Parts: sequence; C-alpha cells; structure tokens
Amino acid sequence: MSLVVQKYGGSSVADAPAIRRVAQRIAAYREAGHEVVVVVSAMGDSTDELIDLAAAVSPAPPARELDMLLTAGERISMALLAMALTDTGHEARSFTGSQAGMITDAEHGKARIIDVTPGRIRQALDDGAIAIVAGFQGVSQTTKDITTLGRGGSDTTAVALAAALGADVCEIYTDVDGIFTADPRIVPLAHRIPLVSHEEMLEMAAAGAKVLHLRAVEYARRYRVPLHVRSSFSDRMGTLIVEGGAHFPVGPEQFYDSGNEVSPMEQPIISGVAHDASQGKVTLIGVPDVPGKAAAVFQIVAAAAANVDMIVQNVSTEITGRTDISFTLPTDDAAQVVDALTTARDKLSFLSLEYSDQIGKLSLIGAGMRSHPGVSARLFAALSEAGVNIQMISTSEIRISVVTAKDDLDRAVRAVHTAFELDSANGEAVVYGGTGR
Amino acid sequence: MSLVVQKYGGSSVADAPAIRRVAQRIAAYREAGHEVVVVVSAMGDSTDELIDLAAAVSPAPPARELDMLLTAGERISMALLAMALTDTGHEARSFTGSQAGMITDAEHGKARIIDVTPGRIRQALDDGAIAIVAGFQGVSQTTKDITTLGRGGSDTTAVALAAALGADVCEIYTDVDGIFTADPRIVPLAHRIPLVSHEEMLEMAAAGAKVLHLRAVEYARRYRVPLHVRSSFSDRMGTLIVEGGAHFPVGPEQFYDSGNEVSPMEQPIISGVAHDASQGKVTLIGVPDVPGKAAAVFQIVAAAAANVDMIVQNVSTEITGRTDISFTLPTDDAAQVVDALTTARDKLSFLSLEYSDQIGKLSLIGAGMRSHPGVSARLFAALSEAGVNIQMISTSEIRISVVTAKDDLDRAVRAVHTAFELDSANGEAVVYGGTGR
Repeated sequence: MSLVVQKYGGSSVADAPAIRRVAQRIAAYREAGHEVVVVVSAMGDSTDELIDLAAAVSPAPPARELDMLLTAGERISMALLAMALTDTGHEARSFTGSQAGMITDAEHGKARIIDVTPGRIRQALDDGAIAIVAGFQGVSQTTKDITTLGRGGSDTTAVALAAALGADVCEIYTDVDGIFTADPRIVPLAHRIPLVSHEEMLEMAAAGAKVLHLRAVEYARRYRVPLHVRSSFSDRMGTLIVEGGAHFPVGPEQFYDSGNEVSPMEQPIISGVAHDASQGKVTLIGVPDVPGKAAAVFQIVAAAAANVDMIVQNVSTEITGRTDISFTLPTDDAAQVVDALTTARDKLSFLSLEYSDQIGKLSLIGAGMRSHPGVSARLFAALSEAGVNIQMISTSEIRISVVTAKDDLDRAVRAVHTAFELDSANGEAVVYGGTGR
Repeated sequence: MSLVVQKYGGSSVADAPAIRRVAQRIAAYREAGHEVVVVVSAMGDSTDELIDLAAAVSPAPPARELDMLLTAGERISMALLAMALTDTGHEARSFTGSQAGMITDAEHGKARIIDVTPGRIRQALDDGAIAIVAGFQGVSQTTKDITTLGRGGSDTTAVALAAALGADVCEIYTDVDGIFTADPRIVPLAHRIPLVSHEEMLEMAAAGAKVLHLRAVEYARRYRVPLHVRSSFSDRMGTLIVEGGAHFPVGPEQFYDSGNEVSPMEQPIISGVAHDASQGKVTLIGVPDVPGKAAAVFQIVAAAAANVDMIVQNVSTEITGRTDISFTLPTDDAAQVVDALTTARDKLSFLSLEYSDQIGKLSLIGAGMRSHPGVSARLFAALSEAGVNIQMISTSEIRISVVTAKDDLDRAVRAVHTAFELDSANGEAVVYGGTGR
C-alpha cells in the first residue's frame, strides 16, 4: 500500500458531473489499496466570481477579508467532492487548510507555508477514510487568521502535504496530458515529456511553461517529492518529475510498477523548448561603466517591486567609458519601472532609455546539455537558418534563453524543436482538454 | 457607550448594493459611540443554491459535509460586509463561528450551542474594530468539525453572542418592521407591537409567527437578552422583546433613550393573533380509557420524531370506557406518524384513526390575559359571530389556541383581531420589504 496525494484543479471539478467523475477516479485508487489524500481547488471560475463580488462591494478590499472570502470557494468544492465520494461507498472527510495543519505566515494573499501539521489527515487515513483538503489556504501562526497562498497555491498545498506525510507520489491533475517538449498550440509535433528532473522543471516553469506552479516545483525539489503531472480526463500517464542526476527511472509506468524504485538511465540531452511572450525589455543606453552603477540601477528596479528576468550588460567601449544594460521584466511591471528609472536618470547618468514589449523569450532546457558541448552552437544555427535575429542571450547550467522579436517567437520555437530532434516521430496525439469539457 | 449585537438576514445582504447599505447603518452605530458586533446570514438564496448543488452531486449527502458546504455561504457574506465597512473608514474583522467561539455538540445540521467563548470578538472590540460573525455555524467540542445550528440559526448565534458578551440589546434586522398584531397579509389593519415579553414572543413564535426563530427567543428569555426586531430597510423602531411582568418599558424609543432603563407600565391585555396553516390533525377514536394509553400513543409519536403541538383528550363515556385523543403536528411529519400508529393499532386498541390537513390554528397571545377574566369567552363569541366552528381548544397562561377548518382561518383571524380592538386606529402603514428589493 502506498500513500498518494492527488491535486485536482478548478477545471477538473467545474460542475456536479465533473465532481462525480473525479470521485470515481479517487475511489479506484482507494480500491486498489492506496491511501489517498486529495487537494482540491475551487470549482471552475468561482474564485474569479468571488473577486468580482469583492470589487462590486469595495474598491480596495482589505487582504485579510479577501482571503476569508476566497477560501469559501475550496470549502464548497471539497465538501461536494466528499459527498460524491461517500456515494462511491468510501468514507471521505473534508478539511480546511487550517484543519489540515497548513500553518503559514500572516502575509494575506501570498502567505508562505512555515509548518505543516497534518495530524487530522493522518488520523483520517488511519481510520480508512479518504482525506479531502482545501487547496490554496492556511492559517496564520501568529494572528490565527485565514490566509491564502496566492494563485496556483493549490499545487503548493499538495506538494507540502505530500512532503509532510511522506507520500510516495504527488499527482497534479490538470486539463492537459502532462508537460510537453513545447507548447502544442505552436509546435504541432510537440510530445509529452515522460520524465524530467525537478531542476529542469523549475527552469521550464520559470521560462514560461504554465502547467505547473513554479513555487510548487521549488517545494517539491527541496523536499524530494516525486510529482506526476497528468490529465484528469484520461488514464494516460503524464510527466513524472523526480530527483535528477543519474537516478532517473525509465518512465512513469515503471515508476508505479516498480514500487517507486528508480533505475539509472541515460539522460536525454534536451527536455523541451519553453517560451514566454509576456515580457518586455528595458535598455539603458550609455551607462557610465564605473563600479556600482549596475547595482544602483537594480536597486531602483527592485524598489519598484518588479521581477527582473534576464539581464545583459554589453562590454563598454574604451573610448566612451559607457555601456548599455538591458533586462527583461513582466510587461505588467514595466510602466512602474520605466517611471522609476526615468526619475533617477540624473543620478544614474545614462544617456537614454528604450522600452519594448514586442519581444519574445525562447528557452531550451535540458540537464543533459551540461555534458554535451555544442548545444548553444546548434541553437544559434537553427535560429539563424530560420532567419530569427537574437537580441539577448542568457544561460544557466541546464537552460539557454534567447530574446527575439515577438513576431519571430513561434517560428523560432518550431525551428529549435526540430533542430533538437524533439518532433514526435510517431505523431503521438496531443490531447488538450478531454471528453468532459 | 453600549454594546449592540446586530443580526442581518439573507434578504438584508442579498447583493453588493444591499451589503453597502447595511455597512452604512452599522457605521452610523459605531460613529454614535457604540461597540458593534454583527451577525450575518448567507446572501439571499445562496444557501438554497448550495443545497441544490449538493443534491446534484449526491442523493444523500453526509451531514458533516453538508455543514462544511453550507457554512461557505456566511463566509462569503461576512467577508464582503467587512470589506464594505472598511470603506466607511472603520476597521472591521470577520470571524467564522469557530473563531467566534460558538462551541456546539456534534449534531450536524441541528447542533446545539454548549458554550460561547468570544475571546477574539472581545479583543476586536477592545481594539476599536467592528466584529462581523458568521451566523448559523459553530464547531463541535468533541470532533472539532464544523457544525450548523439549523435553519434560522443565525438568530440564535446573535442572541448567544449577545448573552456571552453582556450586550445591551440584540437587534434582529429583517425585511418587515417588527412583530405585528396579526399577519398583515390577512389582517390589513394589523399594526406593529411596540413591546412584548419574551414569554409572549415565545408563544407567538410557537403559534406560527415566523419573523423570529423560536429557539432564539428561548435563548433570549433564558439569558434575559433584550431583543429588538426591526427592518433593515428603514430607520423605524420595531418590536422590543424584553423581560416580562411589570418591568415593561414604555416603548423602544424610550428604551434606547433611557440608557436601557425600563419603567413600569400597564400591560396591554392582548399582544396579537398568530396563525399557522401548516399543521395537520390526527384523531384516534375509541382509545380505551385506562392508565398508560395516552403515554403509549405519544411514545410512538415521539419515536416517529414528530413535534406534537396541541393535544386534546375527550372525557370518556362511562358506558363504553373509551375516549378520543386528538393532536396536531406539522403536515410534513404526518405520513410517518400515521403509519407508526396504524402499525401499533392492536397494541393501542383504538377503534379507528382519522387524519386531516384541512385545519388551521389561531392563537390569541397576551400576558395580560392572566389577570383579565372573560378573554376566552370573548374569543369564542367572536368566532361564533363570524360563523367559525371550533374543533379543538388548548390554553396556557398567556395563550389560547383554537383549531378551525383551514378555509375559516383567515376570517377567524380578522374577526378576533377586531374583537380584541387590535385594529389599527390611525391606519399605520404596514411596510413589507423596502425600497431596495
């Protein structure tokens, strides 16, 4: 018998028939002898509806009360799921984040988990019951107020519970079949990645792959929780995310069949191509190339609360003694940052500032590239052949990212996907959504 | 400065504009220097919508999960109300039943309050904040599970909090102007009762006056909590329900003006005429008039979980040694009770059973009738003059109830209302609902 934590997103529990279908899937796990803990999001768009209601009542709702309001959504979905499970002949008990022991700090709307004390969940499992837990929410250690973990927080709830309970696997159910080598809407020959390391998944999530929440991947990596991202609309295996290095198992099927024993295998060189069209680029031209100037720039950017992604500084010309600094950031943050930098122009002594939201970012990810030379050369050649101009480059040990013109992005993703032989050979069907939607 | 507990029903917080209007009212109390605790029901019909959702998921949802589901309704309304209050410039904090210290037994769906520990509410008041509390809900002392108090339980929450906090008054806001001498839909000249004792209100609630929940009145009487039933759609005074006897204040205005000091006054003889058309009548004909038979009958009725209201046993004729026993009960419970009694016919040795749902119950209520002879004679004369036949009679010290044919009920209520000079002399306007609905 193994312990499985399953997380179902809003689209998987969007209405009563969907909830009953999910209950059948959970019941099958229980009947196969597993202990099952289920983390559930609010139904369909209900969180957005609550946010609209708050906006209709108050122009600036206090964060504490917004958390109180939004947590009603999971309360509804988890109670309904427990009811549907009871009808399958299994005992099910629902628990709020507070009851499940999700202890957080007091940062309403974006609380961090500081402890997980799942005593009531463990007791429910020991009693033979299925435990249903409200995702996305917790209780503040200091104020005892209800908190939320922020959007996508249900993934984090699931991973945190899996870690605290020592679960064998944490299954993240969504409306796609797993993580793909590229976005299938752009690359029709993209195929499901059967296995990937936490580190690569982290790079992919950061580079724009939206299936899994970055924070949940970080948590899973830290606590070595095996993740399995799969569709709630099919029984197909999805993408297994496990501890990296040479200990990759051969595939998700074998992972389940082997009692979670993993066997070494040769790593693939490249896992996938991610893209992100939601960033803008700021360039400061003619920044004096003296110590401390870059630090001064990014202090101002940080004060504007922007998450800077890529940073590139040109080599200065000895004649002018000035250099250019470019960085990318979410377009939503751009106005604020441009304002702050323009205000500080005299202090920073740059000559001019350029901003463009007409950029796209392509990232090639693969733990194998560490030991395989020539990956970047192959990437640049593929982009060149496709007639794509590169504006910025940034690399980590398992990722190479380039910034291109936004109009070139889709073409670039397809070219790179082909160049690294990721195109599906057998034309494996890519399934988005399912019969139930 | 006084401490006021206010309870707003679902119709008072049905949508965002209604919530903002209620917030204005609460803010005005706070600005007048009062400490304010607000108990709120779920918005409009949202509880019924959640019940429909549960029915769509499961034919027989478990009571624990139904409570978990339904308590989401108050969570939404209280958070929204706290947001709207914050916009008025006052600090407001919302609390679930559990956070407010509403400790109950574990009877899901109809939990009884066994303790109230409002430490966090008291702290919020001490901090100068307005406390918003979810009505209708609590937490089980033994299982720590979320419970509900049953329909109308928000009234009980408000009274229990008022008692525990030592509030000066508990205001119950509804969509009518207070308690009336009769149902204004039947008696157009009915008028608002300014003052009534807990005992009379108890009789009126039991006799079918639906504005206030019976259980809340019982609780208020036991803990001597002054209640004020009034409309959330106007600033008019409603009906004040206070400790009875000679200590009636002269009116709600004076109650507020006097710092809640009450002054003796002559009691009115009759407070009002209540009616109830939701009862049926069971008659057992030819029950042997021997000790223990009546007890045996009502043991069977109690086992069928029916709430029996009036019971009448005829004098037996010495010749047959048999008597007839009649009682009234909610029509919803009738089928079960008739079945149980029919099954036990041999044991109970009655000759035949009759059941009718074509009855109505009229109750005349007034603490003054204790010391005023001739009330019942006047009642019977009024009914006789109106051509209404009386099927059953039952009396208490402050109530006389009669059962009539259902078709006669409205006419009977009007006749009695006139006979006891309750008809409004000045044609005071009766307001149902308000401008906002």
